[in-house]
Amino acid sequence: MILYYSPGSCSFASLVALEMTGLDYEARKLDFSANEQRSDDYLGINPKGRVPALVTDKGILTETPAILTYIAAIQPDSKLAPLEDPWAYALMQSFNAYLCATVHVAHAHRHRGYRWADKEASYEDMRNKVPQTMGDCFALIEKDMFKGPWVLGDTFSTSDIYLLTIARWLELDGVDTQPLPRVMDHRERMLEQPAVKRVIDANR
Amino acid sequence: MILYYSPGSCSFASLVALEMTGLDYEARKLDFSANEQRSDDYLGINPKGRVPALVTDKGILTETPAILTYIAAIQPDSKLAPLEDPWAYALMQSFNAYLCATVHVAHAHRHRGYRWADKEASYEDMRNKVPQTMGDCFALIEKDMFKGPWVLGDTFSTSDIYLLTIARWLELDGVDTQPLPRVMDHRERMLEQPAVKRVIDANR
Repeated sequence: MILYYSPGSCSFASLVALEMTGLDYEARKLDFSANEQRSDDYLGINPKGRVPALVTDKGILTETPAILTYIAAIQPDSKLAPLEDPWAYALMQSFNAYLCATVHVAHAHRHRGYRWADKEASYEDMRNKVPQTMGDCFALIEKDMFKGPWVLGDTFSTSDIYLLTIARWLELDGVDTQPLPRVMDHRERMLEQPAVKRVIDANR
Repeated sequence: MILYYSPGSCSFASLVALEMTGLDYEARKLDFSANEQRSDDYLGINPKGRVPALVTDKGILTETPAILTYIAAIQPDSKLAPLEDPWAYALMQSFNAYLCATVHVAHAHRHRGYRWADKEASYEDMRNKVPQTMGDCFALIEKDMFKGPWVLGDTFSTSDIYLLTIARWLELDGVDTQPLPRVMDHRERMLEQPAVKRVIDANR
């Protein structure tokens, strides 16, 4: 398999999941500063022009929640998802959907305002609100969603990998992490995991 | 089970899925014009203050992709998801994630700009761009993502229900549907399904 990634992006989650399973894969970097994600070659792989994209012998898969749960499904021994428990699995999907559609989207308004507006003044307005929106999202995670010690409680899952991925953006997004002790403790524990260290040490 | 919904919102997808399975459920309407989704009562059910929320005997589930696949999982005979095929299931999750995190988010910039900015001028800028962003999303679906006759090809899935749900917003979002013959044909066929008709006839 090949995983297209960009350092610092949400593709980090897919890389960590692959490392945790021991699956054989090649990581291929896209240089966003050179706009490689919009090159004709890459648009032939992922017409959305985004990362991550996982190239498999069955075809190409995009979107972090789908890649994470696919990796978990084909390597059940790695126990990255509660595959045999439909309710726990649904809670994992729910958490991942919130990260994907609300939290990541809030974050994206810091640098990607052009996706949703055309004027520089709007981009500035969006940028200024990111500390608040990301702070609100993580306050909800801290208070209502995170069960502990892992996102789903006693069961480690893809949601832990995905939460770490986005929690790494908190300081850059201007969020005060002091009111988020549980999220920050989780981030520290995740950063100690060998698979996570391997991805970070490879600058991915 | 109880499904909290608001007419015209993405909760339509969960209602259709419930109707297709024959599961026993109660639909409870929230009046968004009265801001009922922000009432203390409802925030106790879903602290996100959004719909849909599915109340079950195991707990409360939110986020459309998670609710759809949970309904599919507990009623496998309804064949709303390729539960036995990890690759096809991943493609369904990928399509649903795109609808949730990119297409629905593009749509939300028409009326919900306050989520990401503070100034009226920014809201107007966002509103004006929605026909373009939604048009671009659906052009990608039409050209690259939709396989036909159903989203995933020969296999009907939750992605068909979710696509219908968002495709119903196209005209209100100012999208020219003429370049979208496959999406529009799919919408017509979906609107003929008895379960879809029941939800529409009940003004849900």
